[in-house]
Amino acid sequence: MITSLQNPAIKNIVKLSKSKERRDQQLFVIEGARELSLAIQSSYKIETVYVCREKFADTKYPNVLNSLHDNILFDISPAVFEKIAYRENSDGLVALARPKSHRLEDLKLSETPFIILLESVEKPGNLGAVLRTADAAAVDAVIVCDPQTDLYNPNVIRSGVGGLFTVQTAVCSSGEALEWLKRKKINIYAAELEAAEYYQNIDFRKSSAIVMGTEADGLTDFWINNATERIKIPMLGKIDSLNVSVSTAVITFEAKRQRGFK
Amino acid sequence: MITSLQNPAIKNIVKLSKSKERRDQQLFVIEGARELSLAIQSSYKIETVYVCREKFADTKYPNVLNSLHDNILFDISPAVFEKIAYRENSDGLVALARPKSHRLEDLKLSETPFIILLESVEKPGNLGAVLRTADAAAVDAVIVCDPQTDLYNPNVIRSGVGGLFTVQTAVCSSGEALEWLKRKKINIYAAELEAAEYYQNIDFRKSSAIVMGTEADGLTDFWINNATERIKIPMLGKIDSLNVSVSTAVITFEAKRQRGFK
Repeated sequence: MITSLQNPAIKNIVKLSKSKERRDQQLFVIEGARELSLAIQSSYKIETVYVCREKFADTKYPNVLNSLHDNILFDISPAVFEKIAYRENSDGLVALARPKSHRLEDLKLSETPFIILLESVEKPGNLGAVLRTADAAAVDAVIVCDPQTDLYNPNVIRSGVGGLFTVQTAVCSSGEALEWLKRKKINIYAAELEAAEYYQNIDFRKSSAIVMGTEADGLTDFWINNATERIKIPMLGKIDSLNVSVSTAVITFEAKRQRGFK
Repeated sequence: MITSLQNPAIKNIVKLSKSKERRDQQLFVIEGARELSLAIQSSYKIETVYVCREKFADTKYPNVLNSLHDNILFDISPAVFEKIAYRENSDGLVALARPKSHRLEDLKLSETPFIILLESVEKPGNLGAVLRTADAAAVDAVIVCDPQTDLYNPNVIRSGVGGLFTVQTAVCSSGEALEWLKRKKINIYAAELEAAEYYQNIDFRKSSAIVMGTEADGLTDFWINNATERIKIPMLGKIDSLNVSVSTAVITFEAKRQRGFK
């Protein structure tokens, strides 16, 4: 059992909270049995799992380790777990896994896809929240253009409760995404406060991508100018904006409602 | 200008991050010009405002202090502001204000009200996010039953970007809320994963209250048993839940859509 906080493997897990380390080492951290279970189901390559048995005894997902080889499992003491755990009320598992590539060309789409595109998303918590919604609504894909955070930030995994693993995701430039959407003949709906059309009047039964900007600055002119249509959510109160994960959910579930939740 | 971190007024602001202090002193902290402006518009009594002029120079709300008496404004140094500021990228204002009472009997309702009820909400960030959505959707009121956090937690104000001030809010026990809703003949829709009916099939043009539980435990039997109907959002993915602020927004905007956003 690993009990030393100075163990090099333990110190390396802490290092992996930095984006540069994740990129250089081609490794990222998954915390939590539910999240690990979803990553395994989605064929992520799991390199190592550190298990704090005291905590893991209470998990709701006791079978998560069954499909893994014993030689990648390492027991750790509660003190070590405390040091590497990122969340409160975590259930005793910290795993290292290999990132996947997230290429537009690899996305498998339904006949009339519904896609969420996020431009320059900054806060990992927002990206995670959108992925969680994207899972619930079973959208075809989430495309992340010119992101200011990387997909494997621990906060993306935490706030997405594993949505990162269950939702098809591509990362690319806005230019690449636009070219791809046009080639696929997918309508582009740019969400922004000054739009003339309301979201509820759009026929989302057609192939659609909604494009969401950052909360601070909204969308760039690139997406506003290249959209099939600009859309907005009616703002009936005194505050003129919604959280981006909330506005994404409102539009996405309206689209799914129109499609009969199929 | 206040420059000492040991100034008793400054130390007291830090104290007010604790619920007990807020209750004992009948004071709470508002940070940010937008939030302060909304509190003033909603007739909150502002006791004192601490102003860091360097930061406030860049605010988008330069007129917020105009309606306040000079004798409640105190300049503070950037170091002092740093100590009391709760957020990143804050625009130089920290104010102390008096809480309001939040009684069911004081709520003013439209003819066919739409109400959001939160049971035992725990995370101030979730409560704030719901209040922000409630503002955007102009719901009649948010009722907070048996809360595990108080309304004036700084995180409620921050994540609500001032929705606490713009939305009618009542705090009470579940028993009181049920009695009040029945007396007002408002339909009660309890959101929970095991419900038989989907939210999109409900006629929300009638007087309606949606009842949302905590993310960890859902609703108690009290609300499930006393609901007019139990409703759920279709979960089409692998993760079986949504963030409570997201599910509240999805149902609320569907209700507003049915009502023509009036």
